[in-house]
Amino acid sequence: MSELIQNQIKDVIQAIVEDYGKGRAIDKVDLFSQPDKAEIISLVEKLFEIVYGGYYRDRSFKIYNMTSKLALLLEDVMFHLKKQISLALRYSKDYETASETVIDRKSQELALAFFKKIPRIRAYLDTDLQAAFDGDPATGYKDEIILAYPGFFAITVNRLAHELFLLNVPLIPRIMTEHAHSVTGIDIHPGATIGKYFFIDHGTGVVVGETTVIGDYVKIYQGVTLGALSTRGGQSLRGTRRHPTIEDNVTIYSGASILGGETVIGRDSVIGSNAFITKSIAPGTRVSVKNQELQFKYGKGSGLVNEPAQDDSWCQVNKGE
Amino acid sequence: MSELIQNQIKDVIQAIVEDYGKGRAIDKVDLFSQPDKAEIISLVEKLFEIVYGGYYRDRSFKIYNMTSKLALLLEDVMFHLKKQISLALRYSKDYETASETVIDRKSQELALAFFKKIPRIRAYLDTDLQAAFDGDPATGYKDEIILAYPGFFAITVNRLAHELFLLNVPLIPRIMTEHAHSVTGIDIHPGATIGKYFFIDHGTGVVVGETTVIGDYVKIYQGVTLGALSTRGGQSLRGTRRHPTIEDNVTIYSGASILGGETVIGRDSVIGSNAFITKSIAPGTRVSVKNQELQFKYGKGSGLVNEPAQDDSWCQVNKGE
Amino acid sequence: MSELIQNQIKDVIQAIVEDYGKGRAIDKVDLFSQPDKAEIISLVEKLFEIVYGGYYRDRSFKIYNMTSKLALLLEDVMFHLKKQISLALRYSKDYETASETVIDRKSQELALAFFKKIPRIRAYLDTDLQAAFDGDPATGYKDEIILAYPGFFAITVNRLAHELFLLNVPLIPRIMTEHAHSVTGIDIHPGATIGKYFFIDHGTGVVVGETTVIGDYVKIYQGVTLGALSTRGGQSLRGTRRHPTIEDNVTIYSGASILGGETVIGRDSVIGSNAFITKSIAPGTRVSVKNQELQFKYGKGSGLVNEPAQDDSWCQVNKGE
Repeated sequence: MSELIQNQIKDVIQAIVEDYGKGRAIDKVDLFSQPDKAEIISLVEKLFEIVYGGYYRDRSFKIYNMTSKLALLLEDVMFHLKKQISLALRYSKDYETASETVIDRKSQELALAFFKKIPRIRAYLDTDLQAAFDGDPATGYKDEIILAYPGFFAITVNRLAHELFLLNVPLIPRIMTEHAHSVTGIDIHPGATIGKYFFIDHGTGVVVGETTVIGDYVKIYQGVTLGALSTRGGQSLRGTRRHPTIEDNVTIYSGASILGGETVIGRDSVIGSNAFITKSIAPGTRVSVKNQELQFKYGKGSGLVNEPAQDDSWCQVNKGE
Repeated sequence: MSELIQNQIKDVIQAIVEDYGKGRAIDKVDLFSQPDKAEIISLVEKLFEIVYGGYYRDRSFKIYNMTSKLALLLEDVMFHLKKQISLALRYSKDYETASETVIDRKSQELALAFFKKIPRIRAYLDTDLQAAFDGDPATGYKDEIILAYPGFFAITVNRLAHELFLLNVPLIPRIMTEHAHSVTGIDIHPGATIGKYFFIDHGTGVVVGETTVIGDYVKIYQGVTLGALSTRGGQSLRGTRRHPTIEDNVTIYSGASILGGETVIGRDSVIGSNAFITKSIAPGTRVSVKNQELQFKYGKGSGLVNEPAQDDSWCQVNKGE
Repeated sequence: MSELIQNQIKDVIQAIVEDYGKGRAIDKVDLFSQPDKAEIISLVEKLFEIVYGGYYRDRSFKIYNMTSKLALLLEDVMFHLKKQISLALRYSKDYETASETVIDRKSQELALAFFKKIPRIRAYLDTDLQAAFDGDPATGYKDEIILAYPGFFAITVNRLAHELFLLNVPLIPRIMTEHAHSVTGIDIHPGATIGKYFFIDHGTGVVVGETTVIGDYVKIYQGVTLGALSTRGGQSLRGTRRHPTIEDNVTIYSGASILGGETVIGRDSVIGSNAFITKSIAPGTRVSVKNQELQFKYGKGSGLVNEPAQDDSWCQVNKGE
């Protein structure tokens, strides 16, 4: 490499290093002071091994006795979770200036409280598994659901993250659910409250907002949004109820949007595909979009395979007047 | 760590271990009795190296002679695929009580049958590559399609998984396609039958159901659903024809839904964005959504950047009456 | 294994090896002649460590002094990026027959030019971080946005890839943005031009086409398409302006589609959910979909949980006449 190039490389490196001195949020360089995303994703994976003991092969431990295996895994997860919680607690106003001793005790307490919830989480997940099996004619095996269904992956992560959210652990719950979002295309905020027998089919594009409340036996399809009417208020809306309530035994078909913190979908209702709902719906209602007007043009097809488009304007449908 | 904490950890571990004794589906702990998801995903990756030999660097084998490299890879994949098939076969009613010898012979036979299909799969994939290149003005290189296009990744996995599906191998095909779903946001059931020259552009949110039949030269865009009218029948619908038929040379634009097992989209048709179709369409038809009524309010914009919203109600559009 | 089986395996391997001799695009086996997808994804990860120095733990280097760490990282990325650029340049008509010396010099020059852009990229990303924080009531921490938000991940990759796109580096920019697409469900072509303070909320299903131009302070939600009216012209449309212009301070709600190279959304406009726009919109306009007609059926709900559907036809809504 020529000296000129080497000097240019030095200059570039110097320019980037200097750029870090600007004091912006992105310039933070105090390593090891915030939670570690890779470590938290690894914790999610280990939690799957704990929750579904038989389904995820344990490649590191060579012990196949379930109790020993679980005990080892749990101690490992406990250790790392406590460490990540202790880093995350610094983001809470209550703990930003706390002593290391206080942080240490509190993070241990929170990790334990979380683990105590695991049997209850597993009880809920068993109902979700049943709901997926009952609701989907495309599978014949519960094991297929556990091993392959994105909706089941997403609700598992959500039920775990939700407990940490309820314990007021900052950052970690959201990093967990955004990992599930990345894996599945299903974006459920850890704050959402979700009842038993919950089933998301296909799931890509689903959004469930922070203050959503969902009852038992609810089934939703791909592209459903349970969202806010508007978030133009930005940070001023933080903490307010912005997302809907879905009562028991409601089905919401693909692409439907249900918006607003005062919107309640009454029990036993069914919301049809692509419906856009911003007001409450009485129990037992079937809502569907009426008369989408379609326009048909016949005879343009020539029968030729891959004919070149002679008139591209045909697809300029739906013009705004 | 204090003794109190250590005792609490012991109690928590004990509670979780006991929770495994409840005999539910999620309590299954017979390790190595079901297919291994991580191993199947690894098989998918190795199959990409086999199907597109030049595009995926082989980091483990240091042999660059193609025949030797392929032979080594194929033997490796054959061995692991046969192992996973032997575990999956136990889910089939025909083999749940079969002897190890029968399982061993059958899984070897199925793995071989699958490998015999690879040249035909590759012939189809070459047509898919051509369709993507011809159909997308945003690329100038076939190699870019192979290395980067999610639609091409998804159809590759689907064509591989579909052959295992046709051989009645349980679980593995679905684990393969759900891996593709996770990577691409494109959810194609391994049961779907797909003709030559298939192209999915962008792809996120696409759903193609189990009993869908797609002809040659079909092109679909992001958010398209080829789905069932209703799956409220759940397991009682298993095995019935629930998804549509798309004939040759059909284009389906983004967000369109085509539902139902009796719905046929005739050849040379074009379905416009967001159309919701539950009845058959004659060949050569161009279908579009007519007159979406838009509402315009002018002059509210102040020209200020990031003005605070003074009236959030403006976006409460589309109210149900 | 029986001799019969071994012979069959040999035959299958031979058949696949022969299949490579057909000379199609997918038969390319000249290893190390095209860019390496895994290496490019690894470069993206290292670029995140450079751009957000404090947020991604450096597991390979054990040096915590920021300058030294960055210098090592930058030299490493420079080396590998130059190598990948030298492979990619062969796809450009200007360099397909160039000498190794020319390729080497040009790829070094391009890698350096890219690195010189990093401070400016970081300045833009800092505005994106501010926009996400200001716009989303569901977070209280900028660090949560950096560590977890898919929209922030996608715009980071896009700003990096866009600079390589502007330098006319083939393949690599698209492999980078399709990696982001896989991770986030957000598909932004590296050619798209995007102003400061850009925020994508939720994001799954977003598509932003190659020739899109976006101003400052623009906010878009999940499922938004900024696309082409039609790409039936295929390769003949390559290089033409096919995607819209979005001026400053525009908000586009979920599921809206804005299509066409002549379509301009004027500054300070707001586009409502699911609007389908193919013509220009004047500045300061609020556009919403008017009167989606919903149909309500009351009293069918029995109050029973999970009642079997007695009449599946209810959901056959939206029939095409």
